Formats: sequence, structure tokens, C-alpha cells
Amino acid sequence: MAELVLDISVSLDGYVAGPDADLENPLGQGGEQLHEWVFATQAWQEAHGHQGGEHNVDSELVAKLVGEASATIMGRNMFSGGNGAWEDDPRASGWWGDEPPFHHPVFVLTHHAREPLTLSDTTFTFVTDGIESALDQARAAAGDGVVRLGGGADVAQQYLRAGLLDRLQLHVVPLLMGNGVRLFGEQGPVGGLELTSSVESPTGVIHLGYRAAGKPV
Amino acid sequence: MAELVLDISVSLDGYVAGPDADLENPLGQGGEQLHEWVFATQAWQEAHGHQGGEHNVDSELVAKLVGEASATIMGRNMFSGGNGAWEDDPRASGWWGDEPPFHHPVFVLTHHAREPLTLSDTTFTFVTDGIESALDQARAAAGDGVVRLGGGADVAQQYLRAGLLDRLQLHVVPLLMGNGVRLFGEQGPVGGLELTSSVESPTGVIHLGYRAAGKPV
Repeated sequence: MAELVLDISVSLDGYVAGPDADLENPLGQGGEQLHEWVFATQAWQEAHGHQGGEHNVDSELVAKLVGEASATIMGRNMFSGGNGAWEDDPRASGWWGDEPPFHHPVFVLTHHAREPLTLSDTTFTFVTDGIESALDQARAAAGDGVVRLGGGADVAQQYLRAGLLDRLQLHVVPLLMGNGVRLFGEQGPVGGLELTSSVESPTGVIHLGYRAAGKPV
Repeated sequence: MAELVLDISVSLDGYVAGPDADLENPLGQGGEQLHEWVFATQAWQEAHGHQGGEHNVDSELVAKLVGEASATIMGRNMFSGGNGAWEDDPRASGWWGDEPPFHHPVFVLTHHAREPLTLSDTTFTFVTDGIESALDQARAAAGDGVVRLGGGADVAQQYLRAGLLDRLQLHVVPLLMGNGVRLFGEQGPVGGLELTSSVESPTGVIHLGYRAAGKPV
């Protein structure tokens, strides 16, 4: 069965977005700094049809993660930054334009039902009946690959606390943001984490892999 | 000039103590789990006059950190768990009994003046005129060694935000505590961190070294 892997960039003090996120600035103040390392990689540039970029351990890891992902789950906020009825959402086609970078099925958790949306070779399916349903559908789509959980923090916490997350791949960026959206909430302990890998990059990012066998204790 | 190094164990979700800390349970609920890795090392056991313990990368790092520390700064809460007047503090001699494990001068930040306290080869000096004064005194005492900042979180944040911290040595324990005392607060960004080392241990702890050139940005 396809593993569910949370793959997310986080500051050393635990933030995945800056403060005051809105439709114009979905990563919040300073949040783009969390992602500069990935934009700089050759693997990311290639996946988006561009030349150039750095070939380094960051790029090798991005290539591996992009290569193994066969389906993605994300929250509505990560898809469009909006909430409420879709007809009122100015980014109802997502952030990525006509050529989304996924190239595999994407399942978007939302409270608002909607027909699937196909853009180029990516189909977005909107799931209104909960995280387990989204995971079942993503696993069916992923086959032998893995299901990537892209965020945001709220969705990640829901899967973690339900004991449905198999692995965490955290990219810890050497920043103290001091405000914003925290990856991990204040909802009591979760057991069973096991450190499985660490890769230190010259960019100052450290990539930490954990197996997450655990449920809340 | 002696460097000031924050040397502290922290859960993956950023806590340095569990919830509901009190005089009987100063690390809070579950907080002792953050320190099991260090108690298990040969270096820690030797420093406390005991036999046994594991000889592993954790132990090598503990030996290095213990060896280089020539003075320690800590907050009142870490010294005794108390607050208010010393005559009302049931642990006014600290947590460590007649043979404290420091073997070098310790400077305790407090709002309540008090004469120095000597126990075996450790003298505790109580500093009431602020973090810069404590650092000046500790540096004078440390000579060519380093000044270790042991915590807690409040004192660590004060030094960090004043731009007085030279390095962070974080021991990231594979736990999601989900509640308690966070190492890093919500007081805005601090720049200039640089990853300088990472050591992955079979115990699941990852030891991250950062240079902290920065001040608040």
C-alpha cells in the first residue's frame, strides 16, 4: 500500500508560513524564504520546464521526492488560498496556471463540493468526505508510488493525529521566523517517531526523515 | 573572548519542557524524555562519578561539550524551580545536592539578590543586574573555554534577541510533545543563523550546531 509522506519546509522554530497570509501573499510575510532552497535546485527547475539551477544534495533529494510521488493530497488553502464557495474564489483554478507541476492526480480537501478540474496532465479531485477518503482515493491512484502530503499545517496535523502518516520528510531551513503558522500544534503528544535519515546541505538546510508509526499517546 | 553557546535538548516540535511544570516535576509532564539520551551516555555517567553508560556519538558529543564549558549561565527557574524570595524557596541550594556536576562557576539570573553559594567545587553567583552583566562575569570566569547557556527557554530567548548568543547546539529528540514550554517564542524574526554541524545518533537524536551571528531583523 502506498505510503503517505509529509514533505514540507519548516523554519528552525517550526513555522511553515509567515504571519498575515492572504490571497495576495499566501506564504505570509517572509514565508517565501522557506522555499528558496527548492526553487534554486536544478531538479525543481527541470520539473517546471526550465534550464539551470544548482546541482547539489538539495537537488538530488528533490529529484528523488518528485520521482517517487504518484499522487498528492493538499488542503483547500494550499490549492487556492481561498475558503467558502468556489464561485467566490478568485484562484479557483489553483496557483499554478495552465501547466501545474504535479503530473499526477491531486486530491484537495475541502468543505465545498466541486467537479474534478483537469489542467494539462494534472487532475484535481475535490474531496468533501474527509481525510480517510482522500487517502483511500490517493492510494488507489498512486499504485506503487507514494502519496505526498504537501500541507498545509492543519491537514498535516489531522493526518498525523489520526495515525495515518507513514513518514515525515522535513526540510529545516536555518531561519527563526518568530511568527506565523506552526507546523505542529498544541494538541498533546504523538508517539512512535523514528529518525531514519538526515542530509546536511551546503545551503544550510538540513533534511530530516522520520518514520511516523505513532498515534496520539 | 569566550563564546556563548546555548546547549539544550528540544523535541522535534520545539518544546524544552512538558506542560504543568512545578516544584515536584520541574521538567513538566513527559519532559524527562527529552533528557534520557544524555543520562544514557558514558560521558554523563562519568561526569557524575558513575560507571557504565553507552559509548556512542551522543557520548562523544557530551564529552566535548562538558570539556569545553568553563562557565555556565542559567535562569532561576532552572536553578531551583522556584521564584520569589529565596527564604521561601524549598530548593534554594539547587537541584544537584552537595556535589553539583558543573565543576566550574555558574551564574544564576534572578530578581532576588543573594550571596554566592559554594557547593564542593562549584560556586553559584546570583546576578540581579541583567543578562549582559551575567555574560560579562561568565566570560571573565571562562577564560579560553566557552560559556554554556543551559536554559530555560526564557533566558535563551533573551540572549538570542539581544544578539549575544554565538552558537546554538540543539539536541533534537524524536518526540512530538504537543504541549509545554517552547524554546522559541513568537517575538518576530531573528536573522543570521548558519548550520555548522549535524550528527545523527542511533538513539534517534540529531545534534544540530548553528552559528548565531544575528540580531532581530
